[in-house]
Amino acid sequence: MERIYADYASAAPLYPEAVAAMQEAAAQAWGAAAASEYREGRAAAQALDRARQQIAALINARPAEVYFTSSGTEANNWAIKGLSAAQPERQRVVVSAIEHLSVLNPVQRLTRFGASQSMLVAVDAQGVVDRAAAEQAMTAETALVSVQLASNEIGTIQPVAELVERAKPRRLLVHTDAVAATGRIAVDVRQLGVDALSLAANQFGGPSGVGALYVREGVRIQPLLDGGTQEQGRRAGGENLIGVVGAGAAAERTHQELAARGGILRRMGERLLAGLRQRIDGVRPTGPTGPLGHPAQRLPGHVSLCIEGMEDSEALLRALDLAGIACSNGSACSSKAMKTSHVLKAIGVPEAQAEGAVIFSLGWASTDQDVDGLLDRVPRVVEQLRKVLSNNAR
Amino acid sequence: MERIYADYASAAPLYPEAVAAMQEAAAQAWGAAAASEYREGRAAAQALDRARQQIAALINARPAEVYFTSSGTEANNWAIKGLSAAQPERQRVVVSAIEHLSVLNPVQRLTRFGASQSMLVAVDAQGVVDRAAAEQAMTAETALVSVQLASNEIGTIQPVAELVERAKPRRLLVHTDAVAATGRIAVDVRQLGVDALSLAANQFGGPSGVGALYVREGVRIQPLLDGGTQEQGRRAGGENLIGVVGAGAAAERTHQELAARGGILRRMGERLLAGLRQRIDGVRPTGPTGPLGHPAQRLPGHVSLCIEGMEDSEALLRALDLAGIACSNGSACSSKAMKTSHVLKAIGVPEAQAEGAVIFSLGWASTDQDVDGLLDRVPRVVEQLRKVLSNNAR
Repeated sequence: MERIYADYASAAPLYPEAVAAMQEAAAQAWGAAAASEYREGRAAAQALDRARQQIAALINARPAEVYFTSSGTEANNWAIKGLSAAQPERQRVVVSAIEHLSVLNPVQRLTRFGASQSMLVAVDAQGVVDRAAAEQAMTAETALVSVQLASNEIGTIQPVAELVERAKPRRLLVHTDAVAATGRIAVDVRQLGVDALSLAANQFGGPSGVGALYVREGVRIQPLLDGGTQEQGRRAGGENLIGVVGAGAAAERTHQELAARGGILRRMGERLLAGLRQRIDGVRPTGPTGPLGHPAQRLPGHVSLCIEGMEDSEALLRALDLAGIACSNGSACSSKAMKTSHVLKAIGVPEAQAEGAVIFSLGWASTDQDVDGLLDRVPRVVEQLRKVLSNNAR
Repeated sequence: MERIYADYASAAPLYPEAVAAMQEAAAQAWGAAAASEYREGRAAAQALDRARQQIAALINARPAEVYFTSSGTEANNWAIKGLSAAQPERQRVVVSAIEHLSVLNPVQRLTRFGASQSMLVAVDAQGVVDRAAAEQAMTAETALVSVQLASNEIGTIQPVAELVERAKPRRLLVHTDAVAATGRIAVDVRQLGVDALSLAANQFGGPSGVGALYVREGVRIQPLLDGGTQEQGRRAGGENLIGVVGAGAAAERTHQELAARGGILRRMGERLLAGLRQRIDGVRPTGPTGPLGHPAQRLPGHVSLCIEGMEDSEALLRALDLAGIACSNGSACSSKAMKTSHVLKAIGVPEAQAEGAVIFSLGWASTDQDVDGLLDRVPRVVEQLRKVLSNNAR
């Protein structure tokens, strides 16, 4: 039985171009640090420069504004902690209630040490941040507003550019976690107007373990990793050269293909959602969808839903895995830790419904055959599981 | 002209085994996060587990005590910041004066925010930490003592196990930066008795961008990267799977070969140092060497010296590079930033002499032909450079 990979929300498969670039880089057996001032070191530095240009082109930044990190999580930690620390006179950090844990938990740590106060801005039933509440939170004490560009769980795209417009006159910094957005929709730091933006290469066909933080020229940020002078003295540590080269290659292909991909993914996602609703009773889509939804404000190819009568989504995922389907029930980072998603809670999904949460997310290698396979297998798995559960209940 | 790589103190070339393991891992095109509970995710988790066992075996730790990081720098940052934060009732961090910048700069940041006081313990002319001064600094306010196992600059091996003996009755935590030591000498966390230990894969034939922090079972540490539940909830972020697999393969080969390597590297290093002293006037070895030195307390194959009459070591490195030699003048992390090394200053090398600092460091792929080549080319380069400089001075 052919496997269907439908978990792009956790990570995309590697592009062949990224694999080839990394294999070539590994074969060069660079040992030299990119800071070393001899031939081998300069070659490493050039490879790093090229990858930085490729990432910068993907998000319309200048290469000098792109800082490599070890993950989207590190980029988010650095943005939250480093931008706050650079403004000790301002104590408040404003985030939405549905941010990724790599934003929420750093905020929690700051507040625990008394360095900051945080404010969680509510979202509506579609997951869209309450603009008025966000604006109200933009006071003179606010150092930073951090709102994700898109949710990896419910696919909601946030009005980040609008928030930036409101923040600008108040001279607040705005960071956006674009990890789930990059590779799925266009991400343009100039159009967004943000001061900082996080991304992760494994979301757009690069390797896991490479992230980047865009920091707009002129914005002050304190390092999270102190030490040597790598990354313009802002992020110390020997560079993940092989991974970064793969990330660059993935960024280049993503940049070339992204415009054409949106429509394809959107159509696949719509067909998948409509088909699942038709074939399974008790399907509740989450995020912006359905007649009340904002199709333009949802990640294309991202189908998130709750299926009635599932005891818990782990059992559903295991059954789907046995049926050859790789998908998830939320952030891959937290799936083992938490029963109920804070995101589903924030958009008002009752706990019992949230237990049947599942996400099918498509991406660069997805095909119409994948959608056919999902429409064929998922309803059967759900039916079988429901039978088992109702037999157990008797 | 054949290149001679003599900068193992910055980074070792990749082992072919590490290259092959990474190429295979890249070809598997893992996109799945290791936390994902489906087949592809479990395969990634197994690869991660295996690498963790390989690293643990190298340092005689239990796998659950090994946490992957993105570099030795991150491991050092985490140890300093995370172990301090876990003991808010104890304010003092004690470090030697010749620690790497990835230890010294995190300590500086802690003290800048008022969270800690730091104490720099002096070293003698060989670079060995002053045991009595270190013991005096171990007061009830001291949270942490961090002394490197070996210096990447002057090759000095510190009496870490002795410091641990003195710290134990006082219930202090001891961390050691073993980045420069791993791959050159045996590193055994049980024999050392330390609570935490940092290492970096690119020092022992693995890729750049992979480090690890050993944290002894039962020791409390606060995360530096907050977010998901990776690395037992202590270090969030998508894992650098391909890099980690390479690091594991390198650890395994290092573990197999290390016992035999020490003697070979020591003989090569001794021949190189003796030959350079014979062929070049005005060579001052730095670190433990010469009749007053402690040969057993020096990294094998590590030759560090200052050459009289060099205007600055950058010019010397450039000339050596043109002669086919890759070597360094200190930490690759700081070479572009600092004129005079804080390490050479701490061991009492006058600034004028420190300007002619150069390090030839050998490792797993070094050969007797490399030593011959260095003995042939280095004296000629120095002679030419001295001629140029003395002509310029006229």
